[in-house]
Amino acid sequence: MNNIIVAQSGGPTTAINASLVGVIKGALSSEGYDKVLGALYGISGVLNEEFIELEELSDKELDCIYTTPSSYLGSCRYKMPDIEEDSSIYEKIFEILHKYEVTAFFYIGGNDSMDTISKLAEYGSSIGSKIRFAGVPKTIDNDLVNTDHTPGFGSAAKFIVASMLEFAHDTSVYQTPTVTLIEIMGRNAGWLTASAALARNEYSEIPQLIYLPEVPFSTDTFINDIQKVMKTTNNVVVALSEGLQNERGEYLSATAATEDKFGHSQLSGVGKLLENLVKDKLGVKCRSVEINILQRCAAHMASATDLEESELLGEKAVEYAVEGNT
Amino acid sequence: MNNIIVAQSGGPTTAINASLVGVIKGALSSEGYDKVLGALYGISGVLNEEFIELEELSDKELDCIYTTPSSYLGSCRYKMPDIEEDSSIYEKIFEILHKYEVTAFFYIGGNDSMDTISKLAEYGSSIGSKIRFAGVPKTIDNDLVNTDHTPGFGSAAKFIVASMLEFAHDTSVYQTPTVTLIEIMGRNAGWLTASAALARNEYSEIPQLIYLPEVPFSTDTFINDIQKVMKTTNNVVVALSEGLQNERGEYLSATAATEDKFGHSQLSGVGKLLENLVKDKLGVKCRSVEINILQRCAAHMASATDLEESELLGEKAVEYAVEGNT
Repeated sequence: MNNIIVAQSGGPTTAINASLVGVIKGALSSEGYDKVLGALYGISGVLNEEFIELEELSDKELDCIYTTPSSYLGSCRYKMPDIEEDSSIYEKIFEILHKYEVTAFFYIGGNDSMDTISKLAEYGSSIGSKIRFAGVPKTIDNDLVNTDHTPGFGSAAKFIVASMLEFAHDTSVYQTPTVTLIEIMGRNAGWLTASAALARNEYSEIPQLIYLPEVPFSTDTFINDIQKVMKTTNNVVVALSEGLQNERGEYLSATAATEDKFGHSQLSGVGKLLENLVKDKLGVKCRSVEINILQRCAAHMASATDLEESELLGEKAVEYAVEGNT
Repeated sequence: MNNIIVAQSGGPTTAINASLVGVIKGALSSEGYDKVLGALYGISGVLNEEFIELEELSDKELDCIYTTPSSYLGSCRYKMPDIEEDSSIYEKIFEILHKYEVTAFFYIGGNDSMDTISKLAEYGSSIGSKIRFAGVPKTIDNDLVNTDHTPGFGSAAKFIVASMLEFAHDTSVYQTPTVTLIEIMGRNAGWLTASAALARNEYSEIPQLIYLPEVPFSTDTFINDIQKVMKTTNNVVVALSEGLQNERGEYLSATAATEDKFGHSQLSGVGKLLENLVKDKLGVKCRSVEINILQRCAAHMASATDLEESELLGEKAVEYAVEGNT
């Protein structure tokens, strides 16, 4: 037998299942493989030998999975130890791979998942294994090394821009001066937040202000910036990264801890923190909106290009493995 | 001259502009009217004599307005005094209506706006005026008296159900037990929150729990309910109304005030409050998601039926006025 394993890991996106479909279709059309085993919940599914057979899926089922958001196989947050530190887990995984007659392993995920697959490849090479390992990158944050843009980012950006265009109408209905803060994902990468700029057009400058995590954030500058914009409009909309950091490199959200009446510490986001700051310093109506998980799972707004590229990436990974690469 | 005034008021919705287009088209096709004056920012626009001429809009422009979310003419929150208390504002409005040769006034809005238009009609009748007044109802909350369902509700409900289906995928990726709280609009009416139930299907029971503002909320029952659901699944999703009230009829959100490090009072929503409660009482991962203004302005997800009905309502209001009703 000549079987493959495919698994998904890290935070879900709208396009990660398109890559899964790409791997399955690539494996089926290559004729080099027999079974396509899907490991449930990432690498944990391999360790627990929880597999489902994906080669049985019909074309109709694959089409459904292609447009379904989030990870069809489930996900995990599992950090592999360094090989020198603890090789027992690697031995166990390879034992399982041999047991299931696996000759190629595909891991769809973000930076951590790419780290996992590269460690497995490294270990394999150190023991002279012929099993092929390939990572299939994804993340809405667009921050994977060696990529121009990442699967999942396009769809998330599309949702953010569309929502921003709609916010621009919603926030402008009253005559009272209003500041609206839109909190966007990307803890250490400003790509998604920056994509909000695409909502600007000949009719609207919204969002007038954008703050990225790569630039140290100063509350004084922030308040001054808003005051400047308020001189020309009553309707200020600001795009904020969830990962804003102060000049000392500390996350603003970490400093936003509050205590409720029962003395419970309450962690709120950057948006809520700055909403209170604006109300306090400027005395104007201010609302913060956290786009939250909608931006990474709004499949109804998925970018067709993003899905196509994600599928292609899965197919290419299989081709690459068939050619004997790892 | 035989002119009409149309204005919009109250919170924005996805469908309120379809009603505006209905009024404009109704007025143009009735041939009973000359100018269609749009008052900017609701009744304030009448008082400030801020009008734009809407009969000049092209069909293409009307088509664009039809699908544009939020109020094209702007909105206001203006509570008219009782006529007996202060009739001067009524006198002023009627003076302006006469000045602009207005014979019919259409007000698109929610309960407060219907109150305004009914007071104007009442005052008009008391002075023997022949000006016709018609309210064109709208609200995402679906809580207007004498209506089966309201324009704007269908589109908001559609967005909530679609998002809930997507959340169901997103929240199920990890094996760790997770509680996700989705906070939905409708301060005193549970219709929108209840619409989340439509996301349940043969594959998913999400949201397993729904809490409406009409039912007194008990935190003990809430925690017990979650524990019960957690016996059969790791992935609990709860739909919560923003307007939940305790047994004493107090809004939970009002009791959620917290203080940040600078001693500023911070008002957070029901979702955040209960997120902390779940973490504290059950020690499980919990995330709250506030759908926020997206649900009332997501025009990309507007219900075609909702838009058609909203337009029809605008047209019918004009017909009704032409027939001499008020």
